[in-house]
Amino acid sequence: MIVVMRSDATKEQVDHMVERVRSLELKPQVIVGTERTVIALVGDERPVSLEMLETGPGVEKVLRVLAPYKLASAESRKGRSLVPLGEGFQLGGTRVGLIAGPCTVEDRGRLLEVACAVKEAGAVALRGGAFKPRTNPYSFQGLAEEGLVYLAEARDATGLAVVTEVMSPEQVPLVARYADVLQIGTRNMQNYDLLRAAGQQPKAVLLKRGLAATVDEWLLAAEYILSQGNDQVILCERGVRTFEQHTRFTLSLSSVPHLKEFTHLPILVDPSHGTGRRSLVEPMSRAAIACGADGLMIEVHNDPEMSFSDGPQSLTPEGFAHLVTSCRRVAQAIGRDL
Amino acid sequence: MIVVMRSDATKEQVDHMVERVRSLELKPQVIVGTERTVIALVGDERPVSLEMLETGPGVEKVLRVLAPYKLASAESRKGRSLVPLGEGFQLGGTRVGLIAGPCTVEDRGRLLEVACAVKEAGAVALRGGAFKPRTNPYSFQGLAEEGLVYLAEARDATGLAVVTEVMSPEQVPLVARYADVLQIGTRNMQNYDLLRAAGQQPKAVLLKRGLAATVDEWLLAAEYILSQGNDQVILCERGVRTFEQHTRFTLSLSSVPHLKEFTHLPILVDPSHGTGRRSLVEPMSRAAIACGADGLMIEVHNDPEMSFSDGPQSLTPEGFAHLVTSCRRVAQAIGRDL
Amino acid sequence: MIVVMRSDATKEQVDHMVERVRSLELKPQVIVGTERTVIALVGDERPVSLEMLETGPGVEKVLRVLAPYKLASAESRKGRSLVPLGEGFQLGGTRVGLIAGPCTVEDRGRLLEVACAVKEAGAVALRGGAFKPRTNPYSFQGLAEEGLVYLAEARDATGLAVVTEVMSPEQVPLVARYADVLQIGTRNMQNYDLLRAAGQQPKAVLLKRGLAATVDEWLLAAEYILSQGNDQVILCERGVRTFEQHTRFTLSLSSVPHLKEFTHLPILVDPSHGTGRRSLVEPMSRAAIACGADGLMIEVHNDPEMSFSDGPQSLTPEGFAHLVTSCRRVAQAIGRDL
Amino acid sequence: MIVVMRSDATKEQVDHMVERVRSLELKPQVIVGTERTVIALVGDERPVSLEMLETGPGVEKVLRVLAPYKLASAESRKGRSLVPLGEGFQLGGTRVGLIAGPCTVEDRGRLLEVACAVKEAGAVALRGGAFKPRTNPYSFQGLAEEGLVYLAEARDATGLAVVTEVMSPEQVPLVARYADVLQIGTRNMQNYDLLRAAGQQPKAVLLKRGLAATVDEWLLAAEYILSQGNDQVILCERGVRTFEQHTRFTLSLSSVPHLKEFTHLPILVDPSHGTGRRSLVEPMSRAAIACGADGLMIEVHNDPEMSFSDGPQSLTPEGFAHLVTSCRRVAQAIGRDL
Repeated sequence: MIVVMRSDATKEQVDHMVERVRSLELKPQVIVGTERTVIALVGDERPVSLEMLETGPGVEKVLRVLAPYKLASAESRKGRSLVPLGEGFQLGGTRVGLIAGPCTVEDRGRLLEVACAVKEAGAVALRGGAFKPRTNPYSFQGLAEEGLVYLAEARDATGLAVVTEVMSPEQVPLVARYADVLQIGTRNMQNYDLLRAAGQQPKAVLLKRGLAATVDEWLLAAEYILSQGNDQVILCERGVRTFEQHTRFTLSLSSVPHLKEFTHLPILVDPSHGTGRRSLVEPMSRAAIACGADGLMIEVHNDPEMSFSDGPQSLTPEGFAHLVTSCRRVAQAIGRDL
Repeated sequence: MIVVMRSDATKEQVDHMVERVRSLELKPQVIVGTERTVIALVGDERPVSLEMLETGPGVEKVLRVLAPYKLASAESRKGRSLVPLGEGFQLGGTRVGLIAGPCTVEDRGRLLEVACAVKEAGAVALRGGAFKPRTNPYSFQGLAEEGLVYLAEARDATGLAVVTEVMSPEQVPLVARYADVLQIGTRNMQNYDLLRAAGQQPKAVLLKRGLAATVDEWLLAAEYILSQGNDQVILCERGVRTFEQHTRFTLSLSSVPHLKEFTHLPILVDPSHGTGRRSLVEPMSRAAIACGADGLMIEVHNDPEMSFSDGPQSLTPEGFAHLVTSCRRVAQAIGRDL
Repeated sequence: MIVVMRSDATKEQVDHMVERVRSLELKPQVIVGTERTVIALVGDERPVSLEMLETGPGVEKVLRVLAPYKLASAESRKGRSLVPLGEGFQLGGTRVGLIAGPCTVEDRGRLLEVACAVKEAGAVALRGGAFKPRTNPYSFQGLAEEGLVYLAEARDATGLAVVTEVMSPEQVPLVARYADVLQIGTRNMQNYDLLRAAGQQPKAVLLKRGLAATVDEWLLAAEYILSQGNDQVILCERGVRTFEQHTRFTLSLSSVPHLKEFTHLPILVDPSHGTGRRSLVEPMSRAAIACGADGLMIEVHNDPEMSFSDGPQSLTPEGFAHLVTSCRRVAQAIGRDL
Repeated sequence: MIVVMRSDATKEQVDHMVERVRSLELKPQVIVGTERTVIALVGDERPVSLEMLETGPGVEKVLRVLAPYKLASAESRKGRSLVPLGEGFQLGGTRVGLIAGPCTVEDRGRLLEVACAVKEAGAVALRGGAFKPRTNPYSFQGLAEEGLVYLAEARDATGLAVVTEVMSPEQVPLVARYADVLQIGTRNMQNYDLLRAAGQQPKAVLLKRGLAATVDEWLLAAEYILSQGNDQVILCERGVRTFEQHTRFTLSLSSVPHLKEFTHLPILVDPSHGTGRRSLVEPMSRAAIACGADGLMIEVHNDPEMSFSDGPQSLTPEGFAHLVTSCRRVAQAIGRDL
């Protein structure tokens, strides 16, 4: 960290900050500039928050030198993390992984149909919500455990891994009993009790980006899970909130190559939520793969018009099969497969 | 709702949508324009989500006529809601209410000191976190129940109401035992299980705005609580995330007069989190009152430099007393008091 | 347009608005709902601004049915517009076009070197700024006409088309004398005098998206140019401003497939400005092509470290050649070429 | 500036950067940390852009120590700048200044009526656009010089100063002939030729904040004007673009007290454009004054419903008189007047 003193900071204030830095067990190095004095901190600054120093007398600002996360960082580990998904598939390797299925589990027959169709088309995992966070209290809230049972049945029938959302720490054991991957939704990215609970069980965790989270905050959320001992963490970009109105969210694909540089964790993209519009899902899926995504998460529904939620962004099984073909070509063009 | 058909929509598609609207128990009215056909829906559109119609064949877009919330709406209730806070104080009335205290409860003695100081200066309630959501897993996480005990002791000593954060549905009974007002933090604004649990107990609920939530989404979150039977809901503007960098968040004060038009619920402003900088807290507090806020929530700490969190935005007790004097004059200038 | 009346609007207010609509030469159609009365406007609403009706007594809000642009709209023209670029190249057709070159023209020799290198690698046009908008008044401001001369010389030597920025209406004749394509920069997207001047001369115009412009505002800016009689307009996505900090701007690639649906104009992507970081340029270029961009605009410099501006996002000629090879494979994977 | 080297940077790379810093006539100071080496630059870093160093080999990032502007900075000048406005009024002093008038000059009689009304109510200057930047090419574009003549006549009749927008460098002499203050609009905040031209003439300049500009970028734009020798610069906050939808823009009032710390220039607030809704103008005006604004800029129209533009945010003369009374009380409450 670098503590920048105000131009009118007194010698006493500088000395005070030097002592403060020492009390945090870091080594201060004072540089007297022509307009400002700055104090550089030598040592591991991560346990120190900016706030602990910004409050000091005569301090103008504090600049961070190191990223605030450690276990999630590319520097902490040689090579990329691989997370198993379904029968013999490793997410994060050469083959791009597709997770597909309905937004919400609505009934057993329909789920099984979709599961068979997406498996046939090339998916490695089935998604579907049993517990649903709904913005509107008057909307359908999900089938709960019954939905989990249907998901597990669909796995038995197809061999697809099951990815489903968990919404509170108390649901973790229940969901972990049925699912292969626990999904933590965008609205829970900073639900720290939930992150901790997910970090203390053995199933993989798919962590969606918060809709107003910076990439560093997202990696800090991953760090919560990793720091509990669970290293099976998958990141999922799903769009952020901006002023744009032509899509529900702004799918920020540059996070994909950025994360490839800064973390070893596999990274998925969800173009269904990230755009909110069916016609944009396939082109943005291709784009996601082209810039390096390790996988996609796609909403597929047999009858989008009658779906309880997210109909406008759901593909039909035929639409999904088309997407797979077109994405496979892009994957091969960059030396991967799908 | 208004369903706008595409310019190339066929008669069959229009007829299909007319039937679809009828199946939702609404009355369709078709208007054939020069470039588009639109279908107006007559009846209560609230249980219908945009998505249910956007997916239809030939549909270009669907426009909402009514706000999606009902109980929270100014139309649903004559006059403004009042929420009791501490000894004989009603938030939402003529007198502006001040809630003050440390970000986090750190120890008993320090908390009591701050409580006495803010009471003396004019506060009606004490804030302080026993459970803390921290972005960084390596930061201090709060004293938990011990912190709640100290808060209750401070209430006994001062008569201040206690406002403290609850982070999960399971914590609700525990926190409700000690607190007068349950605070739901910005990162939990759309934690629906928590909203529901808070709606099913009798203590007042202070609902902070999500950092990327529109005002309508915020009112829908309030609707979750209200729909469970708890009508003691307080809204708290605390800044939203934008591209701006001179403050931690962008305190969007226009939400205050907007909410005064659209909801009957009382509205607070938190200029401490909303700016993240001590020197901005007092001017923005005056501004909040000037545009109609019913109260303020202010971080106060005896020794901000040594505080475990949020030091840079905490006022000293002296700073808080100064703020109160200056805000009182503004309150009186607009016909209120403090 | 749909005029939504307030729930407490009187019959007089509704009648007033009905008359107001008639005075705008549109046909009002009144729909009395259970909670609101709405008035649908039949006719071409484009010359009417929302503001003209929002101000009426008893009006709650006004909803737009038609997009505000017309000439730029996909409905106004069968097929896609093609804009010639360099020797026998048409932007907007099957072949993806590459525009490459330095941020700023710095000297003759260096420019020629870069021009030869990018031509060799596969570019069809040369970019380079002679007039530079610089955020900081103390930065280098460009070579002005001398720079234009060098660009024209480079065209003569290589056959590349020349794309360069014009910053004010007065510069239009000068720049049009040397350039094949006039670039209107992001900070000038709503400089209406400039748009009009560019619309009144015969050279093609490359219109960059404003850094806080919605797609509809961008298309309205294109409409300004088109409405003056110049139909050679190219759109260029270059990132928008959001809260994100891992890139200088947020490259919003979903605008590409969205524009393919809503306009006939060709669409470029500028991943150099859109990310601000060299290591992200190639992956985001591939993504842009994968989701349908008709071309790319890439900064290339012989010695990025010594470049006067935008060094961190400039590729070396070798880096650019690598990008071309990798993008070509993606273009072919989606049935195009490069 | 602080150059942070990558964790794997070699000694050669560090040495290279040390030389590079010296070549920029700054003194490098190397600090070897436990995980990173950083190089602190001693000297005036302002002429150096981040980019010049970020591109260096082995560099991870570059952090700025000093603000990039100098003449605009509070450190560059003792006390606050005062800008004369109308008869014997100084903007930036104790008395808060009101600028009021129609969005656009529509006709002579109507303008004079509004001018008399706002003068009577307490305004010190008249606003009104003769040249209008309109998002939609089909909207009314202003009366041009005829509008300027009417404004000057209104000044003669009332003694109000005239504030009007200039849209291009060529208009500067014409507008400066009639106006007392040249307004540079939000869409032109980074039109550098215009800033330069405005800096080279003697009339005061009102610089609106760009709708996606950070405060530092805004001050750099002011620096452009100041660096040409014109020190009569007024800043005007008018809202920024965010995801919020309840107002047209998000009026970011925290910029007011922030600017009071960081610059000596006077600061206005425009709550009319900043909210886009008449009912929010008065409360946000009070808020602006309460947090320290030196003045307000308010749209007033005799017949908002029939106004050519911005009707929904225009006050009637009666509404403006009400605003003045209510704002005066707030001004007095904080020790100023109006």
